[in-house]
Amino acid sequence: MAQWVYAFGNGAADGTAAMRSLLGGKGANLAEMSNLGLPVPPGFTITTEVCTHYYANGRHYPDGLRNAVDSALARVGDLIGARFGAPANPLLVSVRSGARVSMPGMMDTVLNLGLNAETAEGLAKLTGDSRFAYDSYRRFIQMYANVVLGLEHGLFEEILETEKEAKGVELDTELDAGDLERIAALYRQRVEKDTGRPFPEDAREQLWGAIGAVFGSWQSPRAKTYRRLHNIAEDWGTAVNVQAMVFGNRGDTSATGVAFTRDPSTGEKILYGEFLLNAQGEDVVAGIRTPQPVSKIVRERQNSRRPSMEEVLPAAYAELKGVCEKLEAHYRDMQDVEFTIQDGRLFMLQTRSGKRAAEAALKIAVDMVHEGLIDQNLAIARVDPNSLDQLLHPTLDPSAPKELIATGLAASPGAATGEVAFTADETEKVAGEGRSVILVRTETSPEDIHGMHAAKGILTARGGMTSHAAVVARGMGRPCVSGAGALKIDAAEGSMAVGAEVIRRGDIITIDGTTGQVFKGAVPMRQPELTGDFGTLMGWADSIRALKVRTNADTALDASTARRFGAEGIGLCRTEHMFFDGDRIVAVRQVILADDEQQRKAALSKLLPMQRGDFIEIFRMMEGLPVTIRLLDPPLHEFLPQKEEEIADVARAAGTSSAKLRARAIALHESNPMLGHRGCRLGITYPEIYEMQARAIFEAALEVEEGGSSPVQLEIMIPLVGFKRELDFLKARIENVAAAIQEQRGKRPTYLIGTMIELPRAALRAGEIAETAEFFSFGTNDLTQTALGLSRDDAGVFLTEYLIKNLIARDPFVSIDTEGVGELVRLACERGRATRPGLKLGICGEHGGDPDSIRFCHQAGLDYVSCSPFRVPVARLAAAQAALSSPRDPD
Amino acid sequence: MAQWVYAFGNGAADGTAAMRSLLGGKGANLAEMSNLGLPVPPGFTITTEVCTHYYANGRHYPDGLRNAVDSALARVGDLIGARFGAPANPLLVSVRSGARVSMPGMMDTVLNLGLNAETAEGLAKLTGDSRFAYDSYRRFIQMYANVVLGLEHGLFEEILETEKEAKGVELDTELDAGDLERIAALYRQRVEKDTGRPFPEDAREQLWGAIGAVFGSWQSPRAKTYRRLHNIAEDWGTAVNVQAMVFGNRGDTSATGVAFTRDPSTGEKILYGEFLLNAQGEDVVAGIRTPQPVSKIVRERQNSRRPSMEEVLPAAYAELKGVCEKLEAHYRDMQDVEFTIQDGRLFMLQTRSGKRAAEAALKIAVDMVHEGLIDQNLAIARVDPNSLDQLLHPTLDPSAPKELIATGLAASPGAATGEVAFTADETEKVAGEGRSVILVRTETSPEDIHGMHAAKGILTARGGMTSHAAVVARGMGRPCVSGAGALKIDAAEGSMAVGAEVIRRGDIITIDGTTGQVFKGAVPMRQPELTGDFGTLMGWADSIRALKVRTNADTALDASTARRFGAEGIGLCRTEHMFFDGDRIVAVRQVILADDEQQRKAALSKLLPMQRGDFIEIFRMMEGLPVTIRLLDPPLHEFLPQKEEEIADVARAAGTSSAKLRARAIALHESNPMLGHRGCRLGITYPEIYEMQARAIFEAALEVEEGGSSPVQLEIMIPLVGFKRELDFLKARIENVAAAIQEQRGKRPTYLIGTMIELPRAALRAGEIAETAEFFSFGTNDLTQTALGLSRDDAGVFLTEYLIKNLIARDPFVSIDTEGVGELVRLACERGRATRPGLKLGICGEHGGDPDSIRFCHQAGLDYVSCSPFRVPVARLAAAQAALSSPRDPD
Repeated sequence: MAQWVYAFGNGAADGTAAMRSLLGGKGANLAEMSNLGLPVPPGFTITTEVCTHYYANGRHYPDGLRNAVDSALARVGDLIGARFGAPANPLLVSVRSGARVSMPGMMDTVLNLGLNAETAEGLAKLTGDSRFAYDSYRRFIQMYANVVLGLEHGLFEEILETEKEAKGVELDTELDAGDLERIAALYRQRVEKDTGRPFPEDAREQLWGAIGAVFGSWQSPRAKTYRRLHNIAEDWGTAVNVQAMVFGNRGDTSATGVAFTRDPSTGEKILYGEFLLNAQGEDVVAGIRTPQPVSKIVRERQNSRRPSMEEVLPAAYAELKGVCEKLEAHYRDMQDVEFTIQDGRLFMLQTRSGKRAAEAALKIAVDMVHEGLIDQNLAIARVDPNSLDQLLHPTLDPSAPKELIATGLAASPGAATGEVAFTADETEKVAGEGRSVILVRTETSPEDIHGMHAAKGILTARGGMTSHAAVVARGMGRPCVSGAGALKIDAAEGSMAVGAEVIRRGDIITIDGTTGQVFKGAVPMRQPELTGDFGTLMGWADSIRALKVRTNADTALDASTARRFGAEGIGLCRTEHMFFDGDRIVAVRQVILADDEQQRKAALSKLLPMQRGDFIEIFRMMEGLPVTIRLLDPPLHEFLPQKEEEIADVARAAGTSSAKLRARAIALHESNPMLGHRGCRLGITYPEIYEMQARAIFEAALEVEEGGSSPVQLEIMIPLVGFKRELDFLKARIENVAAAIQEQRGKRPTYLIGTMIELPRAALRAGEIAETAEFFSFGTNDLTQTALGLSRDDAGVFLTEYLIKNLIARDPFVSIDTEGVGELVRLACERGRATRPGLKLGICGEHGGDPDSIRFCHQAGLDYVSCSPFRVPVARLAAAQAALSSPRDPD
Repeated sequence: MAQWVYAFGNGAADGTAAMRSLLGGKGANLAEMSNLGLPVPPGFTITTEVCTHYYANGRHYPDGLRNAVDSALARVGDLIGARFGAPANPLLVSVRSGARVSMPGMMDTVLNLGLNAETAEGLAKLTGDSRFAYDSYRRFIQMYANVVLGLEHGLFEEILETEKEAKGVELDTELDAGDLERIAALYRQRVEKDTGRPFPEDAREQLWGAIGAVFGSWQSPRAKTYRRLHNIAEDWGTAVNVQAMVFGNRGDTSATGVAFTRDPSTGEKILYGEFLLNAQGEDVVAGIRTPQPVSKIVRERQNSRRPSMEEVLPAAYAELKGVCEKLEAHYRDMQDVEFTIQDGRLFMLQTRSGKRAAEAALKIAVDMVHEGLIDQNLAIARVDPNSLDQLLHPTLDPSAPKELIATGLAASPGAATGEVAFTADETEKVAGEGRSVILVRTETSPEDIHGMHAAKGILTARGGMTSHAAVVARGMGRPCVSGAGALKIDAAEGSMAVGAEVIRRGDIITIDGTTGQVFKGAVPMRQPELTGDFGTLMGWADSIRALKVRTNADTALDASTARRFGAEGIGLCRTEHMFFDGDRIVAVRQVILADDEQQRKAALSKLLPMQRGDFIEIFRMMEGLPVTIRLLDPPLHEFLPQKEEEIADVARAAGTSSAKLRARAIALHESNPMLGHRGCRLGITYPEIYEMQARAIFEAALEVEEGGSSPVQLEIMIPLVGFKRELDFLKARIENVAAAIQEQRGKRPTYLIGTMIELPRAALRAGEIAETAEFFSFGTNDLTQTALGLSRDDAGVFLTEYLIKNLIARDPFVSIDTEGVGELVRLACERGRATRPGLKLGICGEHGGDPDSIRFCHQAGLDYVSCSPFRVPVARLAAAQAALSSPRDPD
C-alpha cells in the first residue's frame, strides 16, 4: 500500500529533498532540514499522490489516509507534548499547500488551526496570556473563513472596526482579551449567517476542511491557467503540509523573519534579511510594522537606528547564522529561509534557493567556486544568460537624485545622458563635435539610421517594443525608450513639451532603457564591469562551449563593441545599412531611379568607394577573424521616401522629378514585400549591384592585406536563395569580378561564397545547394516567417492572443520553433553536410542571441551563432550551458 | 568501331524508327519508311554521335567518317544511276539537320547540292531542260550562301532584280537559261566578294561545308537558348541527313506537297493536304503560288476551282493514299508527310506524327480505337489535357462576319455576347431580367464579384493575365478579355469610346476570351459538345484513373457547371466569396466595425440566414457528393473599401462614420497581409465568426436532409493551420455548435473536420495535426508562396527573368515545384497517414487543374484533386494519364 503521509521534524524525516515530486518543494525541504538535524517544528506532508488519487476518484481520499493523518498528528503531538483538539493542552498546526513548483492560485497558509472556544481557553491558561490566546483565535477564524470557506476578508475587518468604535479605541492593541473573545464570537456568527452552517469548532473537521481546500485550490481557475501557460501537468498534484505551530508573537524574546544567506542584490556573503520582534509570519508580509535588519552590518550600512537581530537576540542570531551556513553547504546554493523564534528558540519553517539579481548571481557563482562549494560547470549553469544583458550597459546610480519627466517602454536596455537633438542630421553633427546626444523623434525610420548610430540613446513618442526604433536600437546596443506618449515633439521648432515642462534642442536629458524612464538633466551613472567575476565566468564558459559566437555588425563601431564582448567574428554584416548613411542614400536612389543599366552603373560607381571604405574599416577592426558579408537584401522601395512631403526633397537631391520618383515608388510597391523582389532576386535582375558590392569587398580585403594587416577570412553571403541555380548564376558573376581584380592587381582575393538558408525550399534542397555553397547561415527570422506563414511586422495582434490562449508556448520570433523551423534547420544541416562534409554552418537570425535557441543550435551541430554585439556574452554563456546539458548532432 | 553513317532507301535501311536518339527524328523515320518498302529517295544519316564527337574533340570529325560518307554517297549514286560531282551524270543531294526533337535555330535545308558550272551543264544535257538546270544552280548558290555561308538572302534578290530590270521583264519565269547562267555567275562573284573566298565549286567541298554548317548550328545562340529553356541536353547532338534529290519541278507530271493522313482540324479520316504542280518543296512554304488540295473531297468542300491531285495525278494520288494508310497502320497515329512526284513517280521525303487541334486529337484517338489501331490507354495518352479547355466553351463561328473594335489579353477562354453594363449592380439587375450582360469595367475589384457572376463575360480596360478580373473569371469559367487599353470607359456616363466608336449601356457586344478580341454586335456561336467523342474518351479516362476529381465552387451555379463536367464533389468552397454578394457586404462590414463581441454577434446574426441559404443551394446541387467548405480565410481589410471616394458611401451603408471606417482600415493594414491576420487566426481571435459559419453549414445540411435530399457528405476545413493546438481550439468550438444544434433539433449533423496544409510547418507537423484533423487538403498556392518565399502578386517582375535566364523551368504557381513544395506534400502525406491510416488527402490549389501537377498528386498518393469547374475534364484526363504512366505512393 502506498505511503500517503510523510512525517518530518525532531531531527529525522520520512522524506528527503530528492522527493520533490512526491512531497512538493516545501515538504521536501522541510524533510531535508529535519534530516540535517535543524530545528524544524514537527509535522507531516500529505503527498501529491493523494491529490492525484483524489481527482482520479471523484474527489474521494484513498483508504487509510485518515488513519495515517491521525497517527501522524499523534506523533507531532507527542513530540510537542500536546494533543490535537485537547482543551487543556492543544496542539495547533499550520496547513499549507506545496506543489513541485510554486504556483499562483494555490491555497495560502492557515495558521493556528485547532483553536476553538475550548482550546482557546486552554491556550490562555497554558500560556498565561489570554489576550494572545483570543487574538490567535479570532485571527484563525478570519483566516479560515477567508481561505477555506471563501468569505471576504473585509467582513471581519468591519466587525473589528465596529467594536473598536463602540469601545472608543483606535488600535487593535487597545482591545483586551475579553473584547477579542467577544469579537471571535461575532466572527463565528457572521460565518454561520453567510455560509448557512456553523463555524467548525471540531479541530479534525477544521483540519479536513483545510486539506480539502488545498486540494480544491489545485483546480482553481487561476491555478489551471498558470499550469496551462507553464506546461505544468494536471496530474502533478499538490502536497499538503501540516506542521506544529510555533509562535513568534509570544513576547520580546520571540520573533519572526526571512533571510537570504547572501545579499541577493550584490551577492556579498553576508546574512541578509529582516525580522520583527513579537510577531507572526503574516505581520512581516503585511507591512504594518517596518521590519529590522537581521545582521548588524546591514543595519550599519542602512544607517538604521533600530537594532538588528544580531544585537537584540544574539544567541538566536548565532544559531540562525550557523543554520544558514549549514544549509548553503548542504544545498551548495544561496538559500532564502523563513524562521520563527519562540521564547528565544529558533525554528526553521522553510528553505529554498534564493532569487538574486544578475550581478549577485555572477558573484555568488564565482565565489562559490572559489570557496570550493561548487565546480565551474555548476557555476556556469547557475547564471541566467539573459540576465547578463543588464550588466553590459551603464546603469543609473540608484542613490542619485532624479527628476522624472516621462515614462515609456523599456525598449533597449542601458542608460544614456546627452543633449537633445530632433533630427538624425543634427545628431550626427553634434556628435561629430564630440558631444553626447539623445536623438528624440516622434518615431524613427530607416532614414534615421545614421543619427541613431551617432546618438548615445534614442527616445521616441510613438511605437512599441518591436517598433523600428526599438529593434534597431537593440541591434546597435543603444539605450532606447520608445512610445513615451506624454512627449509632444515639435521637431521644426526644436522643442518638446512634457506637461508644463518644455525641453529645447541642446538641453540635457537622461534616459533609462532598462526601466523606460526619462529624466531631466544628467543623472550620475555606473559603468559596466566586463572584467572581475564577469570575466572569470566568461572564461570558464568559453573553455567548454562547442559553438563559436560571432556578431551581427554593420559598422566598425559595432564590430569593436562586439569584440570587447568576446565576439569571434562577424556572422552577419548587412550591407544595406551602409546605404543609408550620409550622401550614400542619394547615390542609392540614383541607382534605383536609373533608366537603364548604364545609368545604374554610373550611380553604382559612386557607391563603390564608399562601400570599400566601410569594409576596410571593418576588416581592420576584425584583425583576421572571419567576416560574413551579406549582399544587398531588402526590396528597393525601402530606400525611397514614403511620405509625400519628403518626395520633393529627395527628388531634388537625386536630380530627378517628383513625378518620376513617385512613379518609381508606385512601381516598386509590393503586396507582400517580405516575399517580393529582394535578396538574390535583386542580384539576378540587376547583377551590376552585386558586382559592385563584390568589387568593393575584394578591393577592401586586398588593401587591408597589402597594408600589412592580417588577411581577412572573407565569406560572401547570398541572401534568399531558394534554388541552386540562383546561387550558380550569382557565384559565377562574383567569380568573374574576382578574376577581373586578379587581372588588375595580380592577386586574387581569397573568399568563400555561401548562402543564407532562410526559405523552407532552401532548407529542403540543401543537399543540392551545398554543391555550390561553401557555407550556410540560417536566417531564422525569415525562415520563421515563411515556415509559419507569419509576418513579424503583423503578428503582434494575434500572437498575444495565442500566448494567452496557450496555443503557443513562446513567441517564435524570440525563441526558435524547434519543431517546425527546427526540423528545417536539422534537415538542411544533414543534407548540406552529406554533400559537403564539414560544411560551415551558422545562424544569424535574432534567435542567435536567445539561450533556448542557442541550445537548439548546439544540438543541431552548428558551428557558430551570430547575434547583436550586446548579446555576445549571453550567447557565450548559453552556448556553454548547452554544451553542459545537451548532446550534439554529429558533424 | 562505331558506325558513323546509316544508309537508307531502296526498300531497306541500316536504322529503324526506334533509333531516334542516334539518327534524329527525321533520319529514323526515313529509315523506317525504307524498311517498310516505301519509295524513299536513297540517302544516309550521319549520326548524332558524330556531332557529340565533333564537339568533344575540338571540332574534329572521327576517323573513318570521310570514308564512310564516300561509300554511302557511292551507294546512293549506284541506286540512282548517277555520280556525285560527275559532270555528265551528277548526283544531287539535299542536306538537312535532324535532332531527336525538332528545334528552332538549327540549319535549314540545302537543296540541289552537287551543282556547279560543270554539273549544271551536265544536268541541262541530261534532262534536256537547261532552264531547269540553271535555275536549280542559281537557287542552290543562293541557298548555300545564305544557309551555309551566312550571307543575306537580299543580296541575291538584288542581283536578280537588277538583271530583270536590265532585260525589261517583271517575272522570274521570263528569264531564260542564259540569263540564269549569267545570274549564277554574278551570284558566285558576289559570294567571293563578301566572303573573300570563291564559291565552292567542288561537290565534296560543298557537302562538307553543309555538314559543318549543320553541326555548327547545334551551337547557334538560338539553338542553345532553346535547349536551355526546354531542358535538352547539350550532348544529344544533331544528325545530318544527306539524301538524293528528286525533283517536283520537272514539268506537269511532277509535283511536291505535304499531307496529313486525317484532317488536323476536325480529325475526319480524309487525306488532307496541299500540293503544287511543277514545283520544289520551298515553293509550297514560300507562298508565292497558292497550293491546291490533295484530295477531291477537300476541293469540293472548299469550292475550289483548281483541280485536286486526286484528279490531276490519280495514280500518284492512289499510291500516296496507300502509303499514308500503311504509315498510319504502322505508326498507329495520324501522320504529317512530305512528298515529291517526279515525272509521275511518288517519293516520300518525311513522315512524323501530325500536330492537330484539340477537337481533332479527340476524334482521332477515339476513331483509332474503334478502328482497332490503338487501345483505350493509348487513346487517353494521345490527347493533351490542356487542349480540352478549348472544347468546353462556346466559340465564335469562324465563318461569321465580325466587326472587330478592340483587342486585349485572352484572359479567360470562351466567347460571350450580351448587353454592355458598366457596374456590377447594373449587371446583376439586367441579368436578373433574363438578359445576357457583358460587364465592362476599367478594372474589377472584390466588390464586383456579384456582377461578374451575373455576367456572361467580362471586359476590362486595364490589368494583365493575373489581374483580379482574369483570375476570378477563369475561376468562374466566364470568358474574359482584360487590358483592352483602347477602351475609354466613362462608367458614370454609361458609355465607352473605342477610337471614334461609342458604345453605350445596353448596346450589344461580343467578346472572345480565347483570342482577346472584342466585336461590335452579336456574333453567331458554336456551343461545346460534351457528349460524343468527348464523352467516350472521358469515360475511358474515368475507368482507369485513381485520383478523384472535385471542383472549387463557391456557388450553386459553379457547382452545377462542374457537375456537368464530371466533378465528383466540391474540394473547396470559399465562404468569403459569399460575403461580397449584394447586401451581405454591408453586414460583413458591420462585423468588422463592431466595437465589441456583442455588436459583432449582432451583425453576424444577419449573415447567418444568408450563408445558410447559400449552403442549402450548394448541398442540393451536389446531391450527396462530398462538399469541403473552407471557413473564412482572407484578412478582414479585404472587405473594407480601399479608395477614399468609396469610404463615405460605405460608412453610410454600415451606419458608421467615415473617420471610424478609415481608422479601422488603417488599423487593419498589414505589411505582408499574405502572412498576416487571416485564416484560422481570425477564427481564433474572433471565434464567433467561425461559430456562425459552422451553424449556417450544419443548419443547411440538416434542412437539406430533412427535405428528403441525399445527406451531404460534409467536410469543414480550417485554413492556415500551423499548429495542432489551433485546430484543437477551433474543432472544440465547432463541436460545441454541433452539440447545441443537436440540443435544439434533436439531430446531430454528420461531418468531418479537417485542415488546409498550406504552411511548411503544417506539412512538417502533419503527424501531430492528423491527430485532430480528419482530412487534409493541400493549399498549394499558399504552400508555394511560403515554401519559396514568393508572393504571387509580386513575383511577376522577376519570375519572367528567371524563366528567361533558365533559373526555373516553369512558373511554380502554374506547375507545382515537385522538389521543394512537393517534398513538403509527400512528407505531410506520409506523416499524416502514419497517424491516421486512410486519412483523406486532396489538393485544392490552382495546381489541381495542371496536368503535370496532377501527375505529381497521383504519385504522391492523394485521393483527389480539386480545380475550377472548367478544368475538371482536364483533370480527369490528366489523372488517367498519370495512372497510365506513374506508380503511386502506397496509402
